[in-house]
Amino acid sequence: MDANRIAVIGGTGDQGLGLALRWAAAGRGVVIGSRDAARAAKAAQEICARTGASAAVSGCGNAEAAAAAPIVVLTVPFAAQISTLHSLAAALRPGQILVDVTVPLEAAVGGAATRMLGVWAGSAAEQAAAHVPAGVEVAAAFHNVSAYTLRHLEHAVDCDVLVCADRAETRAALRPWVEAIRDCRYVDGGRLENARTVEALTALLVGLNVRHKVHAAGIRFTGLPAGSREDAGSNRAKQ
Amino acid sequence: MDANRIAVIGGTGDQGLGLALRWAAAGRGVVIGSRDAARAAKAAQEICARTGASAAVSGCGNAEAAAAAPIVVLTVPFAAQISTLHSLAAALRPGQILVDVTVPLEAAVGGAATRMLGVWAGSAAEQAAAHVPAGVEVAAAFHNVSAYTLRHLEHAVDCDVLVCADRAETRAALRPWVEAIRDCRYVDGGRLENARTVEALTALLVGLNVRHKVHAAGIRFTGLPAGSREDAGSNRAKQ
Amino acid sequence: MDANRIAVIGGTGDQGLGLALRWAAAGRGVVIGSRDAARAAKAAQEICARTGASAAVSGCGNAEAAAAAPIVVLTVPFAAQISTLHSLAAALRPGQILVDVTVPLEAAVGGAATRMLGVWAGSAAEQAAAHVPAGVEVAAAFHNVSAYTLRHLEHAVDCDVLVCADRAETRAALRPWVEAIRDCRYVDGGRLENARTVEALTALLVGLNVRHKVHAAGIRFTGLPAGSREDAGSNRAKQ
Amino acid sequence: MDANRIAVIGGTGDQGLGLALRWAAAGRGVVIGSRDAARAAKAAQEICARTGASAAVSGCGNAEAAAAAPIVVLTVPFAAQISTLHSLAAALRPGQILVDVTVPLEAAVGGAATRMLGVWAGSAAEQAAAHVPAGVEVAAAFHNVSAYTLRHLEHAVDCDVLVCADRAETRAALRPWVEAIRDCRYVDGGRLENARTVEALTALLVGLNVRHKVHAAGIRFTGLPAGSREDAGSNRAKQ
Repeated sequence: MDANRIAVIGGTGDQGLGLALRWAAAGRGVVIGSRDAARAAKAAQEICARTGASAAVSGCGNAEAAAAAPIVVLTVPFAAQISTLHSLAAALRPGQILVDVTVPLEAAVGGAATRMLGVWAGSAAEQAAAHVPAGVEVAAAFHNVSAYTLRHLEHAVDCDVLVCADRAETRAALRPWVEAIRDCRYVDGGRLENARTVEALTALLVGLNVRHKVHAAGIRFTGLPAGSREDAGSNRAKQ
Repeated sequence: MDANRIAVIGGTGDQGLGLALRWAAAGRGVVIGSRDAARAAKAAQEICARTGASAAVSGCGNAEAAAAAPIVVLTVPFAAQISTLHSLAAALRPGQILVDVTVPLEAAVGGAATRMLGVWAGSAAEQAAAHVPAGVEVAAAFHNVSAYTLRHLEHAVDCDVLVCADRAETRAALRPWVEAIRDCRYVDGGRLENARTVEALTALLVGLNVRHKVHAAGIRFTGLPAGSREDAGSNRAKQ
Repeated sequence: MDANRIAVIGGTGDQGLGLALRWAAAGRGVVIGSRDAARAAKAAQEICARTGASAAVSGCGNAEAAAAAPIVVLTVPFAAQISTLHSLAAALRPGQILVDVTVPLEAAVGGAATRMLGVWAGSAAEQAAAHVPAGVEVAAAFHNVSAYTLRHLEHAVDCDVLVCADRAETRAALRPWVEAIRDCRYVDGGRLENARTVEALTALLVGLNVRHKVHAAGIRFTGLPAGSREDAGSNRAKQ
Repeated sequence: MDANRIAVIGGTGDQGLGLALRWAAAGRGVVIGSRDAARAAKAAQEICARTGASAAVSGCGNAEAAAAAPIVVLTVPFAAQISTLHSLAAALRPGQILVDVTVPLEAAVGGAATRMLGVWAGSAAEQAAAHVPAGVEVAAAFHNVSAYTLRHLEHAVDCDVLVCADRAETRAALRPWVEAIRDCRYVDGGRLENARTVEALTALLVGLNVRHKVHAAGIRFTGLPAGSREDAGSNRAKQ
């Protein structure tokens, strides 16, 4: 396991590929996972070609990717989230962080991308927490960053990234990965349950994209202290 | 009914008083409603004193206020929303717009202001729509603007206001009232059902206030076209 | 269109086939629909063979089936509900009744059959109502009757069937089809929104089956008047 | 603490008083709690008078009642649930069982008793579990038994009682208290999360009462094995 790398499960999809590209562009190591290892390898090659990152980006099967880095980012469609997590169960180890980027859009069952499904666990992220091995921490982040922007390196990512997790240490561990993406700001999103609203924001942003005929509506929080670029709290958030 | 005025039901509460103050400061006429007419009158006097607005701000009972202006803003706690709407039923007329600012926080039943109650109708705003007389249009807006900032005129209101309603004309009618508040930006929020997420954002902002020890966390949307200050669509939004 | 027949969309699945079998056994006409017309025809033949019903049971494609009877029963998995309804849109006519039997189990996205997904519209049945052509009435019924029992004609169906629909006439139209199934009792379930709980009951019954190692847990309501076999109300239910 | 008694918090309300009356009629000891100790004492006297139970029924403040028995039944309105639990926190001890009977009806905020509020924790019972001291087990039961019937001793209680709790031992501990009520049947409801549907059933039964003009609609499950009167499982339920 290489502490300097991050794994992106479902990394050949829009959101996963965009995140991988941004991290590669920032010189970070990335392991792209896909159900189809060949497809992951090809995606890694394309990212290397676009960013000039060399051996730092590789591709393999999802389970192999999940075993390769301390932080594992899950970017599969909601309908595939539980089955994908089950397929990773043997690869994940206590102490790893699983970052859920899943959004339970109604589109998962043929409906609109501007509406949400309700999740028994409360949010996709809390559902993820119920399907990872004991000792794996779950965080939620990166839902609101436009895949379109991520994949166009010439655009700055004008968006805050709310990071939710039950332990402040888990949230803090993600901060460097947020800040590696140009112009992204890390915002402490508190406990994992807050992912419910962060996920729903994605559907709201999809609606803004549709109504305004744009591709990359994002969100910025105002009124936070200048010190908000510091960790909002070194202790476990109360909420 | 005076087309140049706006009515604020529950206008002696934090959010209602803040909105009334801002509109008065912008020279707009405001009718403050309260269950206690005397309290409403006193609040109106205080606003006049602070803003120099003279006869343009008045106070009275809720039903009288609801009959006095084409746009009626409802700013009562969630637990009082339905009963307040029933008390206004005889006063409201077809063609009026009821702007719901209610947020179904768990605090309504003794829980946290960072968590939401689920509403059978989907959102507090959709619940409001089920309790107004036929022909009264319901919009949702102003949930995310900090009451603290509103009440401190020296602060700019660094926040977008998402306006949701099923008809584009209803949303557009609210635009001047959003823009009358210094630095507020009107953002077309699409259909009323989108209020579900807009309301939930309030609980998220409460959490940011708590974690960051601030009073006025707000929200700005990015990636919207320069033309986003124009009405995003003159037709009924699809979503 | 044959007023004496009922159409069962997705009629080669467990629940649909079970209902079709019971109606055929009671001498009623049934049109089984399937995405695969040949499979539907084969299912119809098997039902004829088991029940001795002759020409009264036939099979065809879903859209053709939907055009063939005034009452159309939808028994597809939740993940296929919206797309199936879209495929029926051109076939359905105002005045037809679409009976939704869909249950939004978490299993639709890889989770448990004892847990529910939340539906933006409130219930699968209300979601159906948003996806049928104007003038088509939607009812919800038959969720709680065990597919296992339906398919074993030697078992009585010891279960009440709650029928929900916004108009009492719609509910009443389903009564003969409920009572055609041996030992089934029709219970007026009131407005369509009540399908939320009726659907959830299915997940509860699945849990009872698992815990008790049985196949056909069902439900009976007590305390209803002897007259409850009569229509509970000839007027539109208030709830 | 007296192992032969049960405490009923909010025991002067309809449901609480009805349960207390039935247990007293069965010769069981009951401690009625109320915010108003005098009112609780008076209710206890009335129950003694009706049932002939003598010293076995007493009344006192809620906290005192909660300290007096191993099983504590909470029968307050949903809007008072959290604050009541906080008032009991100092009195409850690890190992006690808190039986939540709360139903989050929309009526709690002025709406209908046939509709539900959504609870952040999933159900009122799961919310209760988040507000009891560590080591106190939470179960959910008795929601579906009509208060009207409970209070009229001449009526049999023709209703199953689903008992939900995460540990099978907790569920089993409630069985004698269910079976002490004449004609009530204990049904293993599995994990506490299943209370979501059990609570919602209450709103459905309210609707049946309204539509059928009765007072005591109830529920019976069918298809359970004869052995279902035995504990459905001695192990922790899987669901």
